[in-house]
Amino acid sequence: MEAFLEVDPASDFSIDNLPYGVYSSATRGTTRRTACVALGDQVIDLAALQRAGLFSGPLLSKSPDCFQQADLNAFMALGQPAWREARTTLQRLLSSGEGALRDNAALRRDAILPMAEVELHLPMSVGDYTDFYASKHHAHNCGVMFRDAAQALPRNWLHLPIGYHGRASSIVVSGTPVRRPRGQVLSGATDQPVMQPCAAVDFELEMACVMGTGNELGSSLAVDDAGRSIFGLMLMNDWSARDIQKWEMLPLGPFNSKNWATQLSPWIVTLDALEPFRCDAPLQEPGVLPYLQEKDRHGYDIRLTASIVPDGGDETLMAAHHTFGGCNLRPGDVLGSGTASGPGEGQRACLLEKTWGGKEPVRLAGGGGERSYLLDGDEVVFRGWAGGGDGRRRVGFGECRGKLLPSPAI
Amino acid sequence: MEAFLEVDPASDFSIDNLPYGVYSSATRGTTRRTACVALGDQVIDLAALQRAGLFSGPLLSKSPDCFQQADLNAFMALGQPAWREARTTLQRLLSSGEGALRDNAALRRDAILPMAEVELHLPMSVGDYTDFYASKHHAHNCGVMFRDAAQALPRNWLHLPIGYHGRASSIVVSGTPVRRPRGQVLSGATDQPVMQPCAAVDFELEMACVMGTGNELGSSLAVDDAGRSIFGLMLMNDWSARDIQKWEMLPLGPFNSKNWATQLSPWIVTLDALEPFRCDAPLQEPGVLPYLQEKDRHGYDIRLTASIVPDGGDETLMAAHHTFGGCNLRPGDVLGSGTASGPGEGQRACLLEKTWGGKEPVRLAGGGGERSYLLDGDEVVFRGWAGGGDGRRRVGFGECRGKLLPSPAI
Repeated sequence: MEAFLEVDPASDFSIDNLPYGVYSSATRGTTRRTACVALGDQVIDLAALQRAGLFSGPLLSKSPDCFQQADLNAFMALGQPAWREARTTLQRLLSSGEGALRDNAALRRDAILPMAEVELHLPMSVGDYTDFYASKHHAHNCGVMFRDAAQALPRNWLHLPIGYHGRASSIVVSGTPVRRPRGQVLSGATDQPVMQPCAAVDFELEMACVMGTGNELGSSLAVDDAGRSIFGLMLMNDWSARDIQKWEMLPLGPFNSKNWATQLSPWIVTLDALEPFRCDAPLQEPGVLPYLQEKDRHGYDIRLTASIVPDGGDETLMAAHHTFGGCNLRPGDVLGSGTASGPGEGQRACLLEKTWGGKEPVRLAGGGGERSYLLDGDEVVFRGWAGGGDGRRRVGFGECRGKLLPSPAI
Repeated sequence: MEAFLEVDPASDFSIDNLPYGVYSSATRGTTRRTACVALGDQVIDLAALQRAGLFSGPLLSKSPDCFQQADLNAFMALGQPAWREARTTLQRLLSSGEGALRDNAALRRDAILPMAEVELHLPMSVGDYTDFYASKHHAHNCGVMFRDAAQALPRNWLHLPIGYHGRASSIVVSGTPVRRPRGQVLSGATDQPVMQPCAAVDFELEMACVMGTGNELGSSLAVDDAGRSIFGLMLMNDWSARDIQKWEMLPLGPFNSKNWATQLSPWIVTLDALEPFRCDAPLQEPGVLPYLQEKDRHGYDIRLTASIVPDGGDETLMAAHHTFGGCNLRPGDVLGSGTASGPGEGQRACLLEKTWGGKEPVRLAGGGGERSYLLDGDEVVFRGWAGGGDGRRRVGFGECRGKLLPSPAI
């Protein structure tokens, strides 16, 4: 299937992808937020297609307002059969063989906009945000640094997905600058707490899972049904303040060290778009309890990269390659994977690990200097994609990008 | 000031209180949720008073829809001057000397309903929910039981308010039955994890602080300004599964042990109503860092009780008396105090402490048997009030009441 619009083969947003977002267009003189999908370097306005009656399948024709909202929550709540009907409809409408949109000049003007001319927003309203701790390598490395090497991996890690509740209000979309937090840290010099700008700002490269449908309070999602409740995946930067974290996190977990910003890429890539990139999930050893055993255990083969860009400088690649599996709420809820570190030193997905607690600084490209942790003005860029160069069209996530601003005055 | 409606002197809801809630009325044949205040055993419909033009002060007349919503968030976002104008207006309208409501028979029929005939809902939409750990006695007791007696109180406890993010989706209003959770616990017999219904369901008696106005991401609330951002206080039961908590909580804090239910009383008692009950805050020793030092340190003298009612049985009082101070977000965000234990054994505000980890069961009144933790069918009732019997009218919170249902089948 080919799109009737030209799509660069290197684009993250082929017709096999069609990730969902929400845009507004200052050039059209409005701040109204509207649902869209990405195709190449264009955005396709779903509200316009819906007003034109083009979502005429049996499920979506019963929800004629689902794309007339400022977020995708109403559409996501319709469930997997409706998502699949939308995908099939959009692939047909955008294909070279179909004239309903291609040959309607007025509708094309209304519904197709250059991505460069729009502003992208968080595509969903996030009720709750949970962050997991899914990488064994990350959990082991943190255990060595925050507790002790002998018992680095918490005993429960092998038996249950460790997670904690994060802060929903401070989730921001890619491109939003974030501000270095102030906070209470234990002074190494005096062994007393002091209040100061965080001296150990870190990124965490993660995948985020966006809940499509949820479950009622007091019920639960069976492990084999969880997959069809998930609308899609995004890139996530779980910005972290390591010095604040170290002092505050015992006994109730991370709090102010994490709640000052969490950043998401603007596009939700659906599980249907990722389906061709299914792969085996890592072996679980020892085996987990029956309620966690999936009949069909799989992940998705997604390549991830993280870069640091010093103010006015070049990108330095930090970490690469990870494979990610699925997980379980309300439409729009976000579940983070936890830092997606691999086993190798080149696969450590945050500076805490990369620099081993700041003790082994990394050197940036092109005279960007060394970093133990991030400096004001540094920009962090995540990218992620499946396919491309392997005979399959690339299905990518776009960027998750954020620049670190200085702390406010104390 | 006397109300023109009769109010029992023992009522929590004197004209000096006027706590805010949201009701619907099946007897009026509607599920529409409407803002109200409580006065004695009546609810006063704020939407009706607003439609009648009775909120005619300079601030509220500019927000003629603030009470025409299904929750109080829009009103809370207006800020303290508007809250004070509403309070003054309501006290005048409901007083014996004012005829605008008293003498308007049609409006009285529209705006005054017996509380017994309405259903009460959560009065606000909760974006984020944070729970603190404010009682030194509770923190010390938990430290002894979950870690070790020698370092029971975490070192950071004396320097910062320890808190963690809770789950907003599972906050329910008083009267909603809650279901015993299932979960993974470490078997004492085999030292291996098993999945089973929680065998250690506990309550935690807390006060909840409801944010009225918030702050922008990247900014902060100065400690002396935080008080005027708080809309009011509620009673809160932070339902807890102690066996699940013990196994899951290292290293990232409580998760499934807490996210299955958190229960709030239906009424928000404003800080203005509590103003006459200001008292000195406990001394902070050692002193805290300047950013946490308040010019005017105070709490509110509020009496709290918790009771267990076995299925078909009588109430047994569990804990009493606590004094509570203020804390910092978005309108409607909830900040829990943490379990409000006092220094004495009679002031332990959860069963974990009361029964010392289940080892010293409590005996219930009237043949209700013993409890280490709660049994299916037990109902937990919290009450809280200031004043009454001291020459000042009682300002109370009503009840926070929840019955424990059996776990679903495994």
